[in-house]
Amino acid sequence: MYVIGERINGMFKDVRQAIQAKDKGPIRDLAQRQLACGAHCLDVNVGPASDDPVSTMQWLVETIREVTDAPLAIDTTKNEVMTVGIKAAGPGSVINSTTGQQAKLDALLPLAADNDASLVALTIDEKGIPRDANGRVEIALRVVAAAMEHGISPDRIYVDGVIIPISADQVTPTHVLNTIGQCKMLSDPPPKTILGLSNVSQGAVYRELINRTYLVMALAHGLDAAIMDPMDSEMMDAMITTELLLNRNVYCADFLKAYRASA
Amino acid sequence: MYVIGERINGMFKDVRQAIQAKDKGPIRDLAQRQLACGAHCLDVNVGPASDDPVSTMQWLVETIREVTDAPLAIDTTKNEVMTVGIKAAGPGSVINSTTGQQAKLDALLPLAADNDASLVALTIDEKGIPRDANGRVEIALRVVAAAMEHGISPDRIYVDGVIIPISADQVTPTHVLNTIGQCKMLSDPPPKTILGLSNVSQGAVYRELINRTYLVMALAHGLDAAIMDPMDSEMMDAMITTELLLNRNVYCADFLKAYRASA
Repeated sequence: MYVIGERINGMFKDVRQAIQAKDKGPIRDLAQRQLACGAHCLDVNVGPASDDPVSTMQWLVETIREVTDAPLAIDTTKNEVMTVGIKAAGPGSVINSTTGQQAKLDALLPLAADNDASLVALTIDEKGIPRDANGRVEIALRVVAAAMEHGISPDRIYVDGVIIPISADQVTPTHVLNTIGQCKMLSDPPPKTILGLSNVSQGAVYRELINRTYLVMALAHGLDAAIMDPMDSEMMDAMITTELLLNRNVYCADFLKAYRASA
Repeated sequence: MYVIGERINGMFKDVRQAIQAKDKGPIRDLAQRQLACGAHCLDVNVGPASDDPVSTMQWLVETIREVTDAPLAIDTTKNEVMTVGIKAAGPGSVINSTTGQQAKLDALLPLAADNDASLVALTIDEKGIPRDANGRVEIALRVVAAAMEHGISPDRIYVDGVIIPISADQVTPTHVLNTIGQCKMLSDPPPKTILGLSNVSQGAVYRELINRTYLVMALAHGLDAAIMDPMDSEMMDAMITTELLLNRNVYCADFLKAYRASA
């Protein structure tokens, strides 16, 4: 599974303080620690409080690039912040995210095509978030078709079925599992599927337990990627064990250590 | 999910010693502790070493009946031990197990019909364990059809897709997940599905982690029941959380405590 580390996000206090103080140390440190724990890609989000998000994104990406060439997922709803982040991060980055809204696709598909980037596509359109899996898959199909018109292969799209906190809604987790399964049949190659995992436990008490349990459930339905905290070692253990049981990793007695040694 | 406690089994040293000494204390204690931890039914297996399995089964069931009226799953491959156990346990018991072999069905379906018992049906027939999910589902269908001829409703059959230790085979876990999903479409009502969970981790180091991870995966595919250790509290936490995410339990802040309080 493709692990996108979620921790470089201005929503977290340590990152917000580092941004405000223009202190590179904590950002570099979070980049290196997440990669050491098994992240394949790092999410970068300036957070809600930044008063100059364009230059903050530029600064974050440049700071991370001082310690790693790993792919970055530029995480913003603002097109101008996205453009600056994707160009600073370089080829192989991830646009996080587009939706199925035409205006978003018109802005972000050319950016993806021109910069060899992948795209996270939230299954949201002009009418909002669909009620069930069918509506989500319909939006995913429209995004895949639009991407192909720009020369972007379906496997560069990561469909995100938009999970809602379990404290607010107990029906959506099942719809999102079904969306993951159905996306496998959309095209050849199929689009990939992704979860913004920690959303499922927003506002709940047993956050880590809920996150890792839902990750296992989604992997069992074919999930390809997640935006999550790779420094949560119990979650990583659950992920490694699930992939073992799905025959994605080879069994050996200490399969946890073997996975980490080869990561 | 229907939890069948696995611990009253002569394979475990404490049970074997209690059987040899005809010491009722440890058996009663295991019955009560498993029920207190959330078991709905108790598996009873005399183990491989008993030299008089018929009277040992009788003694075990009578000992358990001194402390609880909970359903018992009589776990033996010997038809005469099964008959004694099912009659001693009373109506509502579980025959654990039949296979799809005609001789087994001829012996055990009348026993189930006459004693209002459910049946665990291993997807094994005269040719052995099928390679994939399709072969397993084919056997399940034959068992369901044969059961119906004896007036046994499909939902009294628990299809067990026969898991093999991950240390020996990494392909079977996926076949068994697919078997669970496909069984839902076999009949109306569909048969139930069950796992002998601890088999998946035989011979492995991280047994609890493997067991609870595979339980979550199987539940995400619709599993109805498992033979497992209800005294493994992390496994029970994982089960409760999965059922919450499947909208089978109602959310509240301390959903772990609420489940246990209502169990």
